[in-house]
Amino acid sequence: MTSPKQRVDDWLASFESALRARDVRAAADLFAPDGFWRDLVAFTWNITTVEGPDGVADLLAATLDEADPSGFEVTEEPTESGGVVEAWIRFETATGRGTGHLRLKPEGAWTLLTTLRELKGFEESQGGRRPQGVEHTLAKGRLTWAERRAAERQDQPYVVVIGGGQGGIALGARLRQLGVPSVVIDKNERPGDQWRQRYKSLCLHDPVWYDHLPYLPFPANWPVFSPKDKIGDWLEMYTRVMEVPYWSSSTVRSATYDAAAGKWTVTVERDGDTIELRPTQLVFATGMSGKPNYPAFPGQDVFRGEQQHSSQHPGPEAYRGKRVVVVGSNNSAFDICGALWEHDADVTMVQRSSTHIVKSSTLMDVGLGDLYSERAVAAGVTTDKADMIFASLPYRIMHEFQIPLYEEMASRDADFYARLEKAGFRHDWGSDGSGLFMKYLRRGSGYYIDVGAAELVADGRVKLAQGQVSHLTADGVVLEDGTELPADLVVYATGYGSMNGWVADLVDQPTADRIGKVWGLGSDTPKDPGPWEGEQRNMWKPTQQENLWFHGGNLHQSRHYSLYLALQLKARYEGLPTPVYRLAESHHRG
Amino acid sequence: MTSPKQRVDDWLASFESALRARDVRAAADLFAPDGFWRDLVAFTWNITTVEGPDGVADLLAATLDEADPSGFEVTEEPTESGGVVEAWIRFETATGRGTGHLRLKPEGAWTLLTTLRELKGFEESQGGRRPQGVEHTLAKGRLTWAERRAAERQDQPYVVVIGGGQGGIALGARLRQLGVPSVVIDKNERPGDQWRQRYKSLCLHDPVWYDHLPYLPFPANWPVFSPKDKIGDWLEMYTRVMEVPYWSSSTVRSATYDAAAGKWTVTVERDGDTIELRPTQLVFATGMSGKPNYPAFPGQDVFRGEQQHSSQHPGPEAYRGKRVVVVGSNNSAFDICGALWEHDADVTMVQRSSTHIVKSSTLMDVGLGDLYSERAVAAGVTTDKADMIFASLPYRIMHEFQIPLYEEMASRDADFYARLEKAGFRHDWGSDGSGLFMKYLRRGSGYYIDVGAAELVADGRVKLAQGQVSHLTADGVVLEDGTELPADLVVYATGYGSMNGWVADLVDQPTADRIGKVWGLGSDTPKDPGPWEGEQRNMWKPTQQENLWFHGGNLHQSRHYSLYLALQLKARYEGLPTPVYRLAESHHRG
Repeated sequence: MTSPKQRVDDWLASFESALRARDVRAAADLFAPDGFWRDLVAFTWNITTVEGPDGVADLLAATLDEADPSGFEVTEEPTESGGVVEAWIRFETATGRGTGHLRLKPEGAWTLLTTLRELKGFEESQGGRRPQGVEHTLAKGRLTWAERRAAERQDQPYVVVIGGGQGGIALGARLRQLGVPSVVIDKNERPGDQWRQRYKSLCLHDPVWYDHLPYLPFPANWPVFSPKDKIGDWLEMYTRVMEVPYWSSSTVRSATYDAAAGKWTVTVERDGDTIELRPTQLVFATGMSGKPNYPAFPGQDVFRGEQQHSSQHPGPEAYRGKRVVVVGSNNSAFDICGALWEHDADVTMVQRSSTHIVKSSTLMDVGLGDLYSERAVAAGVTTDKADMIFASLPYRIMHEFQIPLYEEMASRDADFYARLEKAGFRHDWGSDGSGLFMKYLRRGSGYYIDVGAAELVADGRVKLAQGQVSHLTADGVVLEDGTELPADLVVYATGYGSMNGWVADLVDQPTADRIGKVWGLGSDTPKDPGPWEGEQRNMWKPTQQENLWFHGGNLHQSRHYSLYLALQLKARYEGLPTPVYRLAESHHRG
Repeated sequence: MTSPKQRVDDWLASFESALRARDVRAAADLFAPDGFWRDLVAFTWNITTVEGPDGVADLLAATLDEADPSGFEVTEEPTESGGVVEAWIRFETATGRGTGHLRLKPEGAWTLLTTLRELKGFEESQGGRRPQGVEHTLAKGRLTWAERRAAERQDQPYVVVIGGGQGGIALGARLRQLGVPSVVIDKNERPGDQWRQRYKSLCLHDPVWYDHLPYLPFPANWPVFSPKDKIGDWLEMYTRVMEVPYWSSSTVRSATYDAAAGKWTVTVERDGDTIELRPTQLVFATGMSGKPNYPAFPGQDVFRGEQQHSSQHPGPEAYRGKRVVVVGSNNSAFDICGALWEHDADVTMVQRSSTHIVKSSTLMDVGLGDLYSERAVAAGVTTDKADMIFASLPYRIMHEFQIPLYEEMASRDADFYARLEKAGFRHDWGSDGSGLFMKYLRRGSGYYIDVGAAELVADGRVKLAQGQVSHLTADGVVLEDGTELPADLVVYATGYGSMNGWVADLVDQPTADRIGKVWGLGSDTPKDPGPWEGEQRNMWKPTQQENLWFHGGNLHQSRHYSLYLALQLKARYEGLPTPVYRLAESHHRG
């Protein structure tokens, strides 16, 4: 019996020796026929998954000489389960140091994940490399920390990050640590206002273990689900103590790329002044939701009440005793209906298409518990390990891992779903039964993580109407089947467009079209048309517009992928070679 | 050969069985003749060290029935070195759970440290006990986190903490976690202003590993020596995210104790309003330095220049080209002289008595390196372990451990000391050669941690004068030997009085006198008169004034001892029995 460690050591030795010999075929043949290699920037200067030995051969043929990898070794004792050996590894390339994860089957490597963790010669100042903070030699004219910080604010940035929510803040913190001159621009008065301004009962729907930002984890007393004002305070505090270069009360008006100079001209309005920045790199961190979809219905002009997109909804306080129709049945719709009901509004939800619902507690336990929970922490699954394990599953087969979890959830909460269906609510588990995460990754919509509002629909405290909106009258909403829903307020919880809509607004439409749709996998499921992409479209990686990037997603993604985006930007800032393997084509405009 | 583990297990079993049998003598005889037991609140509801078997017997006779201890066991593999076995232990009492540290010699226990870590039934909401943050059932009228926080601010506190520097903040955070209604009152506009307002080149003289606050450690990129504005930002943000109940811009005007009611009346000025609070407990966290010592010299009234206590010094900017005399030669004096020199002032330091100087880098390496450093972290010495190891050394013998470290420092930096002496500087290593920490613990003064300014004195860039001040003239300072030092500014870096001076100001002089001197060990060395106390006078433990406490010290002490003070307050808040063993007598008025 070969031990799991021996099997991994043997595989790594064979792999490294094939790589050293530049024998692409021999290296590729170490993968199982159904094997995958997912690379986050280490070999490809891209975020890429290749499939099978031929995919591996293609990747290696293109990248091997530049990457010049070596030093593959395990970092802890590999484990074996059901014939699959799992191992944590590290390695080096010509420019950096990486870590990874390997699953071996008898036929060869099933999944290999390689990630770039740091650039040689540009390691972050942490632990033993942390700054001194003071020089122990006095000198005339030396600047204090506060003076140096103030002086920095005058410098032209190399990177402009548009949007200072959790995504922009996490990226800004990484760029700061890497010494890349940057500025994060946000329209609000204070970091965290993105959360503070939302309806007052909002709490994060993801649990604390999933939500840590880079460098500074939440303390052990942090609530499982952060109340919105508390996460707002944390983001503000984080921005300050991590010294994220952050311009509040500032709005980007336009951005123009000068291809010859390789630089952007970004026009910013800041406290009434118009400022022109000349960064090399431009990152859109404007929220993965993109621009609000405000639907067009006949009669919107004659309706005498108030109309809002869900993103404009100010909260329930002003609507006590009012009749409210909420068009939509996803997260925002449920949150808004619930808060309105709590404030004694008369609320009707209009469900236009089926929705996937999971109870938050069940999702936490079954869906996230192995990776992000107190249980996971106790089992040694650190945040970084959890992120890596999640990243190690190729998107092509991720749904196969998800389906059984959702089957378990369906069985655990069978009563709940029966009640919802009895109330006339149309419920689904995703087109292939793979549930919430796949819906999130494919389309970023179509679900509700139930934190209580589903019960209101199930028992009729929030009324439910089914069907498409036909038109509005002076007094309310009329559905296609003729149902009339009298309303003082209509809330359109109708979702968001693709993030490249922001590019159309700030750069121009041709650039937005060339970049194409942002988000989604090409899974050929509703709202995620094919062809298959293998990775999320345009996120955290080079796009069809030179020096233009997208960053965002939930707190987990902001934390983890900000590292790879920051390293790509740092490498360019330092003038390192960054040959991109297989820049993704664009198949859809938005 | 008995293994270290076996020796410890045997000792603990014998100890526990003697305790269970209430056989005080048998338990006491398990200690070596030169043994010590230091208890932090677990048995004694006090901070106490007893010496030898008789001391142990006395402690046990008084506390055993109430404490009812059990469950002594090791928490990790004991180690042995030089005939001494060291072990980490845990145990329970009737009211709480504790941890401890044990050193065994062949003759019996050499040092035993017992510390209370939590009260049964009142465990902190951390990790698996963390709050949910949201209730997953909607309900009309439920309050949000922000609304609950706002409502709290109206409640009468059980504890009023005067002073919102690092000490008040750390204690406030612990009380918050323990659910004790409290308020921390500070005169400044923002938490951290205590640091921000000091001279601009100030950095902490203690390194980051020594400085962590409870619950939320500094991130790995935090500088070794925090610049003062950066630590100011951290304290402000810490206060916010830890939800420390904190009143800024508020000043306590007076406090009166009603012994019959067992309550204080505390008058606070807040933003122009006068507010009366009725807490049960009053904590002075006004800075271990206490009130400035402003010396009285003849001629202060005729001097035409400016005079300041070091605590009032605004920084060097306004004194470029001016002649400054700094009276004193400890930390503040050196810091101020250095910054003035950097800003082209003409600076003279007046040394009145000998000073102990160690180079910061040497102190970090030799003095702190085993406990608080990157090296210690790498060796598994967590902050909590380091605090416990430091706490495990009885003050009676601590100097014996310190002396060899300072001998090593003297040898390492022999050139440096030779240069200082050649410049006429009078240097010492403490009255018994035990160096800086002992000076700090005994008298809180008499030293400088050199961050560069000593070189200015050694090479004459900062001038040095020796002797006592005779008087001031219109133009400067005259020493007893007749030396005239012309001055535009005189800075009195003449230290601080005992913290009970604040009690005299806010309560009354009889109460301050009854409480007596705060700080010091009774070591019968300069500025720390005997008799021997065994613990720091009046710090973090009951005093001669019921329901009046002192908290403070450096960041290490604020962090560690805030736990024991918070648990003492929590126990009283919950009405648990807290019989105090051997309340310390007061021997000195201040």
